[in-house]
Amino acid sequence: MKRIILSGCNGRMGHVLQKLIQKNPDLTVVAGIDRVPTDAAFPIYASAQEVQEDADIIIDFSHYTAVPNLLAFALDKKIPVVVATTGLEDKEKTLLKEASQSIPVFYSANMSLGINVLIKALQAITPSVEADFNIEIIEKHHNQKKDAPSGTALLLADSINDVCDVKKDYVFGRSGNDNENKLSEMGIHAVRGGTIPGEHTVIYAGDDEIIELKHTALSRDIFANGALKAGVFLADQSAGLYSMSDLLDA
Amino acid sequence: MKRIILSGCNGRMGHVLQKLIQKNPDLTVVAGIDRVPTDAAFPIYASAQEVQEDADIIIDFSHYTAVPNLLAFALDKKIPVVVATTGLEDKEKTLLKEASQSIPVFYSANMSLGINVLIKALQAITPSVEADFNIEIIEKHHNQKKDAPSGTALLLADSINDVCDVKKDYVFGRSGNDNENKLSEMGIHAVRGGTIPGEHTVIYAGDDEIIELKHTALSRDIFANGALKAGVFLADQSAGLYSMSDLLDA
Amino acid sequence: MKRIILSGCNGRMGHVLQKLIQKNPDLTVVAGIDRVPTDAAFPIYASAQEVQEDADIIIDFSHYTAVPNLLAFALDKKIPVVVATTGLEDKEKTLLKEASQSIPVFYSANMSLGINVLIKALQAITPSVEADFNIEIIEKHHNQKKDAPSGTALLLADSINDVCDVKKDYVFGRSGNDNENKLSEMGIHAVRGGTIPGEHTVIYAGDDEIIELKHTALSRDIFANGALKAGVFLADQSAGLYSMSDLLDA
Amino acid sequence: MKRIILSGCNGRMGHVLQKLIQKNPDLTVVAGIDRVPTDAAFPIYASAQEVQEDADIIIDFSHYTAVPNLLAFALDKKIPVVVATTGLEDKEKTLLKEASQSIPVFYSANMSLGINVLIKALQAITPSVEADFNIEIIEKHHNQKKDAPSGTALLLADSINDVCDVKKDYVFGRSGNDNENKLSEMGIHAVRGGTIPGEHTVIYAGDDEIIELKHTALSRDIFANGALKAGVFLADQSAGLYSMSDLLDA
Repeated sequence: MKRIILSGCNGRMGHVLQKLIQKNPDLTVVAGIDRVPTDAAFPIYASAQEVQEDADIIIDFSHYTAVPNLLAFALDKKIPVVVATTGLEDKEKTLLKEASQSIPVFYSANMSLGINVLIKALQAITPSVEADFNIEIIEKHHNQKKDAPSGTALLLADSINDVCDVKKDYVFGRSGNDNENKLSEMGIHAVRGGTIPGEHTVIYAGDDEIIELKHTALSRDIFANGALKAGVFLADQSAGLYSMSDLLDA
Repeated sequence: MKRIILSGCNGRMGHVLQKLIQKNPDLTVVAGIDRVPTDAAFPIYASAQEVQEDADIIIDFSHYTAVPNLLAFALDKKIPVVVATTGLEDKEKTLLKEASQSIPVFYSANMSLGINVLIKALQAITPSVEADFNIEIIEKHHNQKKDAPSGTALLLADSINDVCDVKKDYVFGRSGNDNENKLSEMGIHAVRGGTIPGEHTVIYAGDDEIIELKHTALSRDIFANGALKAGVFLADQSAGLYSMSDLLDA
Repeated sequence: MKRIILSGCNGRMGHVLQKLIQKNPDLTVVAGIDRVPTDAAFPIYASAQEVQEDADIIIDFSHYTAVPNLLAFALDKKIPVVVATTGLEDKEKTLLKEASQSIPVFYSANMSLGINVLIKALQAITPSVEADFNIEIIEKHHNQKKDAPSGTALLLADSINDVCDVKKDYVFGRSGNDNENKLSEMGIHAVRGGTIPGEHTVIYAGDDEIIELKHTALSRDIFANGALKAGVFLADQSAGLYSMSDLLDA
Repeated sequence: MKRIILSGCNGRMGHVLQKLIQKNPDLTVVAGIDRVPTDAAFPIYASAQEVQEDADIIIDFSHYTAVPNLLAFALDKKIPVVVATTGLEDKEKTLLKEASQSIPVFYSANMSLGINVLIKALQAITPSVEADFNIEIIEKHHNQKKDAPSGTALLLADSINDVCDVKKDYVFGRSGNDNENKLSEMGIHAVRGGTIPGEHTVIYAGDDEIIELKHTALSRDIFANGALKAGVFLADQSAGLYSMSDLLDA
């Protein structure tokens, strides 16, 4: 039985994690951390430092400003910690690295298993085709999403570029009559509409053949799903900084 | 047996038409018109006025500058004429209308049956959803295509707009952090890569549901295909200006 | 302000309807009917006959066995009724028809707006292409769905067949070495996996061109959405039996 | 300048290879082998043993019955040979292995670069998801294709199964009311229509996320394309039996 501390237990992702953990007889939540107190089957504390319970894993979906405090607690108690909070700045990322010298720390730019599996496939494919195939990305999201392209689309693009001999320039749309569509450019297209949770397609188009890799999110629960898998994985590791690619290669 | 005069018989579309006609026992080519003379199973003339043979239909895939001369010939001989040549300017379009007062004339912005079927479906769908669904278009073409978006994508967009209460503004890509993605905007995204012959997808995205209509061209032969269907249709019509929507409603 | 009675108010669809109605200032729930009583902002009764409140519309997502009783109540009070309950048998369908002679009654095989819009588009397209294009359907659902193909896939197939000159035979998969793939057969393919809520694609494949129409459900909320639109529409109608195609043509 | 002998030079693939080689200044055809003699820029012989010219590579798109003779010639002259002919039986496959002890020999179940890249990606993805995701394949081909599912679909399925802990059973369609859709089954769906050259999609469907990998062939020229790449690769290898996976890893 793995005992879990949920940081941000009353947020949207915290609630999804609670449901997923209830379904798994090998996991239990021993304490929650949240500024909003509620009734729950476990005690909820306003800050990490108040937590009394011992635990095997901490999973964090809180706010980037809460991360330093949480890391201090994890280091003090020697508990492996999955930081699934987004929007981390350099300061927090540096703290993650420092903490990982003493305890297992897990952090990924995207916590979904599927997106990371996709990245693995993209990096397996790209070197074989980059000299002959144009590479383009289409992402689709709901109409309330104001930023474009999505952070995940840029993560995919960067992951492709990382293994390219000739680095691609990103192009965010095309119009007019003199588009050259060079191999060295990568079109990234942001479609917006309705309540689409998130869809990313990478298109490799060559002579008379096209390869497409697509990830569809049916809900944002996949980030909680990935974080939980990360937590189970991390509980058995020694000190170090881990990411989804380590989990996939395990 | 319908007798056909092929204008532009030695161009790419002319050759495709020859093949299609050979497969159909009810059709035959009685004469060709082309600046490039070749051996063929039928006589080929350098200009329409030299043609001696009588015919039931003329199908034209030549050059817009050759259209006035061809129309004069069709009017003189009272032969129905399908003008499938692209790039017509106002002058030629006016001549088409004038000719159509005396003979059957067929002209469409896009000669593919499938694209016109798609337009019919788009116009059936749009009024029911325009108030609640975002509408976006993705088109894909080969990397040698310099213009973006494609003329066909704009034709689809305009066909949708024609039946919208609130007219859409076209947006050719998105980036940055303040995209509002209003219902009144229509994103049109041009993907370029490899040798893709042409693909157009219209996306209607609403609350928890998405409707997509997609046309895929496997080759440019579809334009010859559509022109031949148009010719067979036109042979039985009286004087007038016809387009693909007339053929579909027949 | 339209006053609504929700039959089956505590079921999954009842809850979605409550949320949708709360967001709309022109609508309010005045009473609920459900075997399971709960606290709510409106009174909940165990059966229709106990309802005291007057209303402009009844929306029903209950159980087919509860439909006769509900129709008797609607007839007695002269309230328009949307029957969105599934699994109706001939007995209930006959009662619907009888009731519709005195009050407005709404019933559709599928309550999603999008699926019905799709059917409209399919019926606009099919007559133009059925002589030359193969027609096939792919549907995708979650792995807990035991029946195949889905009722919606069969509804789409039947809707296509209704407008076909040559009726199609349905084929539910292909294997072996002697498939003839005649125009008169329609392959219907049931993909099952994960938690896919529901996806239906109709493929028209002809010479060198393909037309595809696809509906994606992101959640089952779309049925509640459609039922609510149906209710608002029905409140302004005279006696008669209405379906989604009436709503789309309105 | 690499000198090539084209076996089966007057077949469909032989003609495509001639065109591709003409575009590449580093390659030239020095001789052809074909039962059908024609005028060409190079001598054409009725059998391999008559060829006088020296060469760096042999590329074979002939008939499986011609393979033994061709291999004898390649062994005699010590020329690397790409066997892209399909339908090989055990006898010819054994001869390939024997020849590869003395000369470089290239043979793959599918000669398209894209399909082999796809296999590489499938094998990178599968181990990470097979315990939680259903895996299904949809393939689409023209309506003249009598066998189902396609050989390529089975190749993809087998390639996935090769890296699965729990081997999948293949299911070629679903109907009825008691489908269990176990993780241990893999649905393979054969869509047939029009002139579709070939499309293969592998779907991984898990909890709230879907990953899809798709290969689209726009024409059968891709097999000639892959064979030519194989030839250029093979010219620089030592004796051995090579396949597309060696080329991709090079």
